[in-house]
Amino acid sequence: MAKKIDWKQVEEWDRKYRLHVEASDDEYQCLLIEHTEGDYLYTPDGTKLLDCLNQLICVNVGQRHPKVQAAIKEALDRYGFVWHLYTTDYVARAAKLLVEDILGPYGWAGKASFVSTGSEAVEKALLIARLVKNRPGIVTREYAYHGWTTGAVGCNRVRGLRGGLSDPTQPDTMISAPTPDAGFYVAPAPNCHECSLGHTYPECKQGDGTLACVLMTERLIETWGRERIAAMITEPVFGASAFMPPPEYLPQLVNWLHEHDILWICDEVLVGFAKMGKWFAHQLFGDLKPDIMTMAKGLVSSALPAGGVVVSKEIADFMGKYRWMHIGTFNAHPVCMAAVCANLEVMIEENAPEKAQKAGEYFGAKLEELKAKHKTVALVSGNGLLWAVELVKNRETNEKFIPGDRRIAYSGDISNHPSSIIGAKCREKGVILTGFTPNTLRIGFSVFVTKEDMDKAIDALDYALDYLDTLA
Amino acid sequence: MAKKIDWKQVEEWDRKYRLHVEASDDEYQCLLIEHTEGDYLYTPDGTKLLDCLNQLICVNVGQRHPKVQAAIKEALDRYGFVWHLYTTDYVARAAKLLVEDILGPYGWAGKASFVSTGSEAVEKALLIARLVKNRPGIVTREYAYHGWTTGAVGCNRVRGLRGGLSDPTQPDTMISAPTPDAGFYVAPAPNCHECSLGHTYPECKQGDGTLACVLMTERLIETWGRERIAAMITEPVFGASAFMPPPEYLPQLVNWLHEHDILWICDEVLVGFAKMGKWFAHQLFGDLKPDIMTMAKGLVSSALPAGGVVVSKEIADFMGKYRWMHIGTFNAHPVCMAAVCANLEVMIEENAPEKAQKAGEYFGAKLEELKAKHKTVALVSGNGLLWAVELVKNRETNEKFIPGDRRIAYSGDISNHPSSIIGAKCREKGVILTGFTPNTLRIGFSVFVTKEDMDKAIDALDYALDYLDTLA
Amino acid sequence: MAKKIDWKQVEEWDRKYRLHVEASDDEYQCLLIEHTEGDYLYTPDGTKLLDCLNQLICVNVGQRHPKVQAAIKEALDRYGFVWHLYTTDYVARAAKLLVEDILGPYGWAGKASFVSTGSEAVEKALLIARLVKNRPGIVTREYAYHGWTTGAVGCNRVRGLRGGLSDPTQPDTMISAPTPDAGFYVAPAPNCHECSLGHTYPECKQGDGTLACVLMTERLIETWGRERIAAMITEPVFGASAFMPPPEYLPQLVNWLHEHDILWICDEVLVGFAKMGKWFAHQLFGDLKPDIMTMAKGLVSSALPAGGVVVSKEIADFMGKYRWMHIGTFNAHPVCMAAVCANLEVMIEENAPEKAQKAGEYFGAKLEELKAKHKTVALVSGNGLLWAVELVKNRETNEKFIPGDRRIAYSGDISNHPSSIIGAKCREKGVILTGFTPNTLRIGFSVFVTKEDMDKAIDALDYALDYLDTLA
Amino acid sequence: MAKKIDWKQVEEWDRKYRLHVEASDDEYQCLLIEHTEGDYLYTPDGTKLLDCLNQLICVNVGQRHPKVQAAIKEALDRYGFVWHLYTTDYVARAAKLLVEDILGPYGWAGKASFVSTGSEAVEKALLIARLVKNRPGIVTREYAYHGWTTGAVGCNRVRGLRGGLSDPTQPDTMISAPTPDAGFYVAPAPNCHECSLGHTYPECKQGDGTLACVLMTERLIETWGRERIAAMITEPVFGASAFMPPPEYLPQLVNWLHEHDILWICDEVLVGFAKMGKWFAHQLFGDLKPDIMTMAKGLVSSALPAGGVVVSKEIADFMGKYRWMHIGTFNAHPVCMAAVCANLEVMIEENAPEKAQKAGEYFGAKLEELKAKHKTVALVSGNGLLWAVELVKNRETNEKFIPGDRRIAYSGDISNHPSSIIGAKCREKGVILTGFTPNTLRIGFSVFVTKEDMDKAIDALDYALDYLDTLA
Repeated sequence: MAKKIDWKQVEEWDRKYRLHVEASDDEYQCLLIEHTEGDYLYTPDGTKLLDCLNQLICVNVGQRHPKVQAAIKEALDRYGFVWHLYTTDYVARAAKLLVEDILGPYGWAGKASFVSTGSEAVEKALLIARLVKNRPGIVTREYAYHGWTTGAVGCNRVRGLRGGLSDPTQPDTMISAPTPDAGFYVAPAPNCHECSLGHTYPECKQGDGTLACVLMTERLIETWGRERIAAMITEPVFGASAFMPPPEYLPQLVNWLHEHDILWICDEVLVGFAKMGKWFAHQLFGDLKPDIMTMAKGLVSSALPAGGVVVSKEIADFMGKYRWMHIGTFNAHPVCMAAVCANLEVMIEENAPEKAQKAGEYFGAKLEELKAKHKTVALVSGNGLLWAVELVKNRETNEKFIPGDRRIAYSGDISNHPSSIIGAKCREKGVILTGFTPNTLRIGFSVFVTKEDMDKAIDALDYALDYLDTLA
Repeated sequence: MAKKIDWKQVEEWDRKYRLHVEASDDEYQCLLIEHTEGDYLYTPDGTKLLDCLNQLICVNVGQRHPKVQAAIKEALDRYGFVWHLYTTDYVARAAKLLVEDILGPYGWAGKASFVSTGSEAVEKALLIARLVKNRPGIVTREYAYHGWTTGAVGCNRVRGLRGGLSDPTQPDTMISAPTPDAGFYVAPAPNCHECSLGHTYPECKQGDGTLACVLMTERLIETWGRERIAAMITEPVFGASAFMPPPEYLPQLVNWLHEHDILWICDEVLVGFAKMGKWFAHQLFGDLKPDIMTMAKGLVSSALPAGGVVVSKEIADFMGKYRWMHIGTFNAHPVCMAAVCANLEVMIEENAPEKAQKAGEYFGAKLEELKAKHKTVALVSGNGLLWAVELVKNRETNEKFIPGDRRIAYSGDISNHPSSIIGAKCREKGVILTGFTPNTLRIGFSVFVTKEDMDKAIDALDYALDYLDTLA
Repeated sequence: MAKKIDWKQVEEWDRKYRLHVEASDDEYQCLLIEHTEGDYLYTPDGTKLLDCLNQLICVNVGQRHPKVQAAIKEALDRYGFVWHLYTTDYVARAAKLLVEDILGPYGWAGKASFVSTGSEAVEKALLIARLVKNRPGIVTREYAYHGWTTGAVGCNRVRGLRGGLSDPTQPDTMISAPTPDAGFYVAPAPNCHECSLGHTYPECKQGDGTLACVLMTERLIETWGRERIAAMITEPVFGASAFMPPPEYLPQLVNWLHEHDILWICDEVLVGFAKMGKWFAHQLFGDLKPDIMTMAKGLVSSALPAGGVVVSKEIADFMGKYRWMHIGTFNAHPVCMAAVCANLEVMIEENAPEKAQKAGEYFGAKLEELKAKHKTVALVSGNGLLWAVELVKNRETNEKFIPGDRRIAYSGDISNHPSSIIGAKCREKGVILTGFTPNTLRIGFSVFVTKEDMDKAIDALDYALDYLDTLA
Repeated sequence: MAKKIDWKQVEEWDRKYRLHVEASDDEYQCLLIEHTEGDYLYTPDGTKLLDCLNQLICVNVGQRHPKVQAAIKEALDRYGFVWHLYTTDYVARAAKLLVEDILGPYGWAGKASFVSTGSEAVEKALLIARLVKNRPGIVTREYAYHGWTTGAVGCNRVRGLRGGLSDPTQPDTMISAPTPDAGFYVAPAPNCHECSLGHTYPECKQGDGTLACVLMTERLIETWGRERIAAMITEPVFGASAFMPPPEYLPQLVNWLHEHDILWICDEVLVGFAKMGKWFAHQLFGDLKPDIMTMAKGLVSSALPAGGVVVSKEIADFMGKYRWMHIGTFNAHPVCMAAVCANLEVMIEENAPEKAQKAGEYFGAKLEELKAKHKTVALVSGNGLLWAVELVKNRETNEKFIPGDRRIAYSGDISNHPSSIIGAKCREKGVILTGFTPNTLRIGFSVFVTKEDMDKAIDALDYALDYLDTLA
């Protein structure tokens, strides 16, 4: 860029003209980023930050992968904009890469449809499920996060992430949007380290092997009336916290849903595209066949906005009998589809799932070492490029720093959250490493992350945990 | 692009792997586009098509404007992805261009917030309105179109454009999604040429000058209970049909809303950014002050996905007191924001509103000439770069071709829709010119459209109307 | 009654132990009633009050009709309680009286089902409509009143009669229950004296004779999507104000609904059972065939709680194919059914509709005389035993006393409402005569009302209007 | 009754003119009842049936208690109808009896408000809760039954008792009303014999003694967002099955709700008024203070329709500051209030709770004897006058007769339900004894039930269980 950027003015404009999130105007800190590369962000003053959040767990092939950036530029030379009634080579190729090259071997995928964001992917999945089943109900789970638009936020049960306003001066209060919360039903989460059913795994297994949380989901659906339920939506692994569910959970759940004529929406927006050491996170749990799978983030490594759904062959056949009166201007934008194609091709060429799996084996072992060293580490969970670390005052007593955790309102003073404290200490070491809930760190990398960078993250975390141990 | 594209294979993949809209699989025609430029689309066989739909009325500075494409490429050299908690120079500049440079003179604009699409812009406006007022209700209007996600489609009252499935074999039926339609209230449209209140303009004015449709809106809001209504959403001009409302409509409506403590969401997604010969369509109707203004399409001339809202100073101050627990991954994507900046700068430099106004004066006069010549033209309405032509069997009798018009289900045989017939005939002349409702043509251009291209459109339409006249 | 009643203690208990309506504790006036007879109420101090509200327009054969009271006593000697899975002679006879004796000649009535109240009758009608059509939507109208339970209040659009709280100290505000208002759609009212569409009747008729308010209802239903609408509910005459709709309204509306496969719920709770000079008010408008008709009040002359629905033969056949998993404990209570039987038999024997019609002819003429005399009387409307008088400051200018009328919040000081003022002046003459909306008096009698009592009401009203004229 | 009743004609009219429940027209059996007395029903042919269902568990002082019937007759001599703006001695006395005489000692009761039915009582409780808290959400539980109107049925989670249609020819299907199911949230039931959480009691207790089902309710409310929840509604004991919850359940739950500013609606419609051996069932569980308590059935021993709510002093004070714009015609009907007064006075005079407790001690012991004898009796649960018997194929294996139980659709052939089989066998012995869910018998008596009648019930049940044992 030829023009010299006046970053003081950028900050001034930012404060003056932009609505900000997660901070009141008084609290707001302007965090300027000048450029990005690989797993790093660079600030205007030249500071280089290792991004162990992978931004929002979404830059799967790393920042500015050369093949992706080149593909976008190439597309810009042919296409401005073409709406999705028309066909470009990019959209057809993106659909083919997904349905045939990546998902073909699994046998269920029928057709793809594209949107611009993860929230839109979820919205499209809800729309399709309701049309196919002609029923209004959607089952979601405690602590689920699926986006921010009206339909997505209905599925969304992390209390502090439903678009509300938290008052910095009033603890434990929230102004939540009075949107009618209609058609959503909440089932338990397979959250074994803090089971809402008060169980421990695997003692929670019933006589026939059914997990208690699956049993309760079945019971709730029957009591709501399954004739009113179109679909259940799950992330295979909770993106907002990344604790691995027990291996039986998804197979048992999906099997029951399918036996009872309820669709399964598998939300792979955050955990898909090699994040978890497989192409898609649900593949960690056996030969599961989604009815509708949602995608964004890793679909395009966030190089440009793109999302989508893949529907099963059965749904594709059903939809194909009708005229679907549905338009979304930027759906299947040709330039974004070019980025999708390049991103997927890079992942295929590089065998991204395998790379992710190997990186995860290295990193997971390192985290376990930290756990052995620090009493505040209660749990290390994850796989591939997505890890969660649960922090407690003392692993022995399991006393929590912040009792409500994902159920709190994020109002009043929140500086004492372990994830904030760790974040601040890691930042001293040039590392962005924190979490989205009070007691849980969420850590992610690109598939090309180096051992050096993982070591750097571990060193910073070790340093931060030393400090946290003193507070416990 | 170095690789030779195999367009047969593109079509094959498209049919096999992509869900399509507005056509069943049996009906689907694959329309391949190879590249785009200015007001033109090019197909793989070299056919050059004048795009008088401006795609979806969304390519305001034309396809592949060099400054926009250059800005995107430049941004790609610095940024992969940065989420909206951080600040890039592009997002700060985009906010400043909007709030200060473009909207500053009008006095109301406070702050901007960005998303990726028009539907998301509407969703964000609904969310903010409900948070600010702490009330669930949203008033929309007959025939409104505001997007496709759950909240946007709730505002959306063109029957055939609510995401449903129409059966090609069954006339007048529709499978509409059984989404609970909660919190939306429908007021009359200021649709003078086919007034649902059975009035004619200006005879509909009441003793105090109030339009009947405004009176009824007031009465309905009072009977619903205004204490439950957060906001009313309107396009200043209906984007799906573009008939100009009477000049008194918006001033009277907005004044009443503000006197009764109800927010006005002004949806400029389609009609904003010089389309109507002003920066924003609402400015055609006097000194109106939106509380929340939505944007997409023209914000970026669809070069990349981008949308947003601008909120009033009062709302910006209110939101600034809280932590807004709201994340949307691709909101304010730096590369898209670069496209926004370039697009807005081009518009400012070129005085796009003035250009649009002048083009409209030329084109509107030409349309009036066609009306004088063809008995099937009932009405020419529009301004700047957006025009609607209402078709009837005979202007004298006002007999309609398709009685239900925007209220029909688009099921069964729809080949007899005047907009389809005109579309087919114009295509013979290398011109894409049709409509989104049965009896209404919707015509749009970029701000750089030439007189030659407008003449070409007029000639094609003249040819098509000659044919339609014979069917009337 | 042997025990002497201590009315001071009654008042004390009433104030201390009972929640009251329409008045804050500070405003509450305890109105004690010692006994009732015919059209009269008697207070403990021996005051005799002519009840021109007919309580809530609900004591059709008058207070304590001897045959009704005797029938109840007789039933008490056989029955305590029997639930509606079982059959008593009373419930079978009540159904037969309704479906065969009273409705048989009109050809549409299939079967009856009983509940305890008018709200429950509306709830049952909504339930049946939604089951039969398998669609969620219910169309209601401005100013409609259909009851107070969740479903009924959803149909209910008199702003001040939706169960909310009005603050005596704050004008124009209301705390309305934040119940999700889902599945209800509001159409215009045929309210010619203050048309929300800004028309006058009969100038509002369209070329084909369709009333503007019917046209708009059709358009709104089409734009909401008729595939989502199960039924439209209407009172044939608005019970809360009693203005007669134009004669074309119901026939046009019902015809259109039936042509478009939407059920018509005809709410005869208030206006049925001879109130309007016919057995049912809808019969004033021609040979109309309800799909579901609701009943209460006049069904039993309020001698005991009873309500019900009569469904068409088609619906009865449909429901008869299924097990309807529906229980309501007090539905078809045998003692209440005895009262229903006696009440209906009295009405049949006495030819109640004819009696009502004749009384109305006398009383209507008297009201017209008052109108001629008093400038504050804008409109006299009604038939049979239900009349409305609209009050304005001056009939010539049509200036209203209370502009918002049925749309107001009833908060702050409401002592200046004309209906309150008239009520107070009539009370001086031993007559209860007031209204349920600010500007409108609602007047009703039993079918056995005497000319003397009607004259007494007219005299009191004349006296009150003399006073009101001085305030205008 | 002087007139001879033609029961053939009664049956003919019943079949021809009345909609029936729980049976299709083809299946419908007309069960004629000629009179009732004490715990007995009498059919026209003179058959005397011991009613061990107490009809719908609602005839607390027995059929046709002389004091109640006399009081009704007395009231009929003074009152026809008086609406609830006015005050009668009966309504004031009923409120005083409830709030002072019966509930006074417990300290929480503020004021009473009356309606006509149990569903209306629940509707009124929901309305008040939403007004007081200005929040839309209501928490209910699996298997809850609270009535049939729109709001009540929203709280209602026995799948087969939500007003739907079951097809006798199609197993496991249901047409449920597509009413938008908005604002209701479902928590687990404290149903220890078939815990949905997969626990056994008391092993389910957490370290701090919290029951797992209480823990999960807390977690769900926090994840739904407690700022959206007005109240939680519970029956203290599930009326539709009568299993006693563990003693810790209600105290823990209510304590948590009150600590978190959520109202507790205690639904005593079925289980109140001495049924469970205390005045109100919640009093079995300690010194609990409802915010709103609902009543019907036992309030009047079903002698006439009457229901109501008692609200806490805090709520009474809040409501008293406003004008409550709420009318329900038959609310506080004077004749029904007379029945309430007499019924409550009888209960007080006779010390009904104590009588119930003693009867229950006798009957419970007898049931336990049956359990010891029959392998198909899995569980005897209850207290006072309400008992449940859970039937299984074999108590050792716990194999169920009908697996889905309260979650089934009651469609297809249901003649094999144990409760139906027992019902048929007991009927042979002149005893009505069955259940409302497939595997559970529900048994109830009046407070005046004799030992002889209880023995008769036990004998019939013994005979029926002998038969059931052979089918297991």
